[in-house]
Amino acid sequence: MKQLTEAELKSGLESLPGWTCNSAGKLERKLTFANFQAAFAFMTHIALIAEKMDHHPEWFNVYNRVTIELTTHDAGGLSKRDLALAAAVNQVAPPESAG
Amino acid sequence: MKQLTEAELKSGLESLPGWTCNSAGKLERKLTFANFQAAFAFMTHIALIAEKMDHHPEWFNVYNRVTIELTTHDAGGLSKRDLALAAAVNQVAPPESAG
Amino acid sequence: MKQLTEAELKSGLESLPGWTCNSAGKLERKLTFANFQAAFAFMTHIALIAEKMDHHPEWFNVYNRVTIELTTHDAGGLSKRDLALAAAVNQVAPPESAG
Amino acid sequence: MKQLTEAELKSGLESLPGWTCNSAGKLERKLTFANFQAAFAFMTHIALIAEKMDHHPEWFNVYNRVTIELTTHDAGGLSKRDLALAAAVNQVAPPESAG
Repeated sequence: MKQLTEAELKSGLESLPGWTCNSAGKLERKLTFANFQAAFAFMTHIALIAEKMDHHPEWFNVYNRVTIELTTHDAGGLSKRDLALAAAVNQVAPPESAG
Repeated sequence: MKQLTEAELKSGLESLPGWTCNSAGKLERKLTFANFQAAFAFMTHIALIAEKMDHHPEWFNVYNRVTIELTTHDAGGLSKRDLALAAAVNQVAPPESAG
Repeated sequence: MKQLTEAELKSGLESLPGWTCNSAGKLERKLTFANFQAAFAFMTHIALIAEKMDHHPEWFNVYNRVTIELTTHDAGGLSKRDLALAAAVNQVAPPESAG
Repeated sequence: MKQLTEAELKSGLESLPGWTCNSAGKLERKLTFANFQAAFAFMTHIALIAEKMDHHPEWFNVYNRVTIELTTHDAGGLSKRDLALAAAVNQVAPPESAG
């Protein structure tokens, strides 16, 4: 798995509202939901996508908040798979879940 | 748990689009989703609600389709708990999931 | 996707305790769990496997009971994919969940 | 919600193998599963319990690993609810999932 070039990352992030490249060099998005039920239903949706992609998030949840970090260990950094999973998150996340 | 009167059931169903009283005397709604992922994420949301209410659906899933039936064994028929769970389903189900 | 021969089905079922070929020609297993929580956690495990296999069950749940039916639409009957998903169910299902 | 006394915490932890009181004063347990599927099925089981208890974990997952932290905001520290949720985790977690 190849690392993204800086240009690929920049262009990828432009079409991924809510996502940033954090200080650890991972893609990161924070989401907030109406309650725990909605947050965990969202996580289940992403879990099914991630398992199918065979690319899994590092994620944290407390009550209605979810923080997702993405990186590709095989690439030693960010790869196209992170952009693909981030895009899937944005498709599933309801508009009102912006952090 | 008391059974709903016919008037309560009729008035309840009026505010529950998609739900009918089926030939077995249970509340029933069929839903269709974009794919299995969306269907199962929805089921997880309802599972969390049902467990909290301590009132569980009889439900069937295949791929992107979910059929839900509700009844209250302690009442020997339909009760307020079925109307409450049906209302929760309608709140969670995206508008495009109408059967 | 090719249908199983009668010999393949017979030999497959021998290594799949709990599964039968039902009157509709589908593989079927009934499971019982300690409670709804355990039943739905099991369903989530199977949902992740099924989505990864791209082969989904027809399944029914009420409270602590789950009935799973398997068939392969593309084969017009049973295929190796049904045996594979049935085997995955048996690996995940705790021994005490025999119907 | 009352904070646990030091004695209550100490005695509680004695019956909660795998749990420690971490440097932030939260109950913490790390678990490892066979794969992501098993980890997320476990999380779904705990999600259902937590929602029913109305007491939610702070938890982190990556692939087959889950870290759970428990605290009670209303108590400004640890309470009986944390011990109860920790005990539920230990009941659900398979023996081989010790971190």
